[in-house]
Amino acid sequence: MTTDTTPNPQTPPAAAPPLTETDTRVLLRLRRIEGQVRGLQRMIEEGRDCHDILTQLSGVRSALDAAGEQILEQYAGGCRARPGETITPQDVVRAVKLLRR
Amino acid sequence: MTTDTTPNPQTPPAAAPPLTETDTRVLLRLRRIEGQVRGLQRMIEEGRDCHDILTQLSGVRSALDAAGEQILEQYAGGCRARPGETITPQDVVRAVKLLRR
Amino acid sequence: MTTDTTPNPQTPPAAAPPLTETDTRVLLRLRRIEGQVRGLQRMIEEGRDCHDILTQLSGVRSALDAAGEQILEQYAGGCRARPGETITPQDVVRAVKLLRR
Amino acid sequence: MTTDTTPNPQTPPAAAPPLTETDTRVLLRLRRIEGQVRGLQRMIEEGRDCHDILTQLSGVRSALDAAGEQILEQYAGGCRARPGETITPQDVVRAVKLLRR
Repeated sequence: MTTDTTPNPQTPPAAAPPLTETDTRVLLRLRRIEGQVRGLQRMIEEGRDCHDILTQLSGVRSALDAAGEQILEQYAGGCRARPGETITPQDVVRAVKLLRR
Repeated sequence: MTTDTTPNPQTPPAAAPPLTETDTRVLLRLRRIEGQVRGLQRMIEEGRDCHDILTQLSGVRSALDAAGEQILEQYAGGCRARPGETITPQDVVRAVKLLRR
Repeated sequence: MTTDTTPNPQTPPAAAPPLTETDTRVLLRLRRIEGQVRGLQRMIEEGRDCHDILTQLSGVRSALDAAGEQILEQYAGGCRARPGETITPQDVVRAVKLLRR
Repeated sequence: MTTDTTPNPQTPPAAAPPLTETDTRVLLRLRRIEGQVRGLQRMIEEGRDCHDILTQLSGVRSALDAAGEQILEQYAGGCRARPGETITPQDVVRAVKLLRR
């Protein structure tokens, strides 16, 4: 029998575009955020006090907002558009509303 | 003796108080948030478009805020206070400011 | 001559408690905010550009938030409670949620 | 000559462009917000309780945000730009940041 041909849902589709420099930077931020969220879980498990936990949670929130802003800027530059889409200023307004929801 | 004496940095200190029901609920939320942040990374790697990514990011933000609110309510009830601390209304205002920063 | 007895709709009812020092400070802030909102109207009428207008609008928003925080602190101190109400930490959480809505 | 030549600081400069329909709608909103801020002052003077005041304050905040969004949309459409400026998606991102500050 030949190797496993089951599609792995995690695998990016063949067509996935190469990562830009901003993509790499956003990914790095998200990895750090993931670690911070794990840190939050540990703080709860360790019975840490409310101030420490809320300070950490507030940091995660800021980090997320910064990532969102970076994605938005990238989008305004034409990247991460739907295939064939040209970004207009109105598109950016629509993207901003997604962020606020 | 052969038991493992390697300290595990993840292990809560012996004094960690037992988890309350709210703790368990907050932990569940945080685990879900961690998964969502991993999902965001995958979306970037797969070259997904800006709208999908920002919609997901906005969901993570709301989930974080909900977790923060739950922690705050728990704190107002006297839980997660520093040992020996009695929570006053002013303490809650201070905690809220941590969240907003 | 008799004095003017026309009821002035602005006049606080006889039972209005004396203003605290914080009240006076909040009122001053609100008066300034009122002026800033009038300034915004003038900027629109004068055809001022978007950046100037949004900068001013953002300033009004911060000023409002600062006023809200001051009212919240006052409340946590027991002031501005409903007559006979004793403020608990839970009440403050409820007040914070009003602010976020 | 006897006509009033006193410059009225409220008068828009001669060059003020005619108001668009959106301008008129934003102005209406701002006038309503101004009234709400005056209402807030009255509530303080009357000694109203914290919940009523914070509910009203939260309403003013939402109304301000809605006005900001309307101005942003108008800007994305090319209106309210600096004279000679063509709006790019990047300009909108910059405008959004002004709003968030």
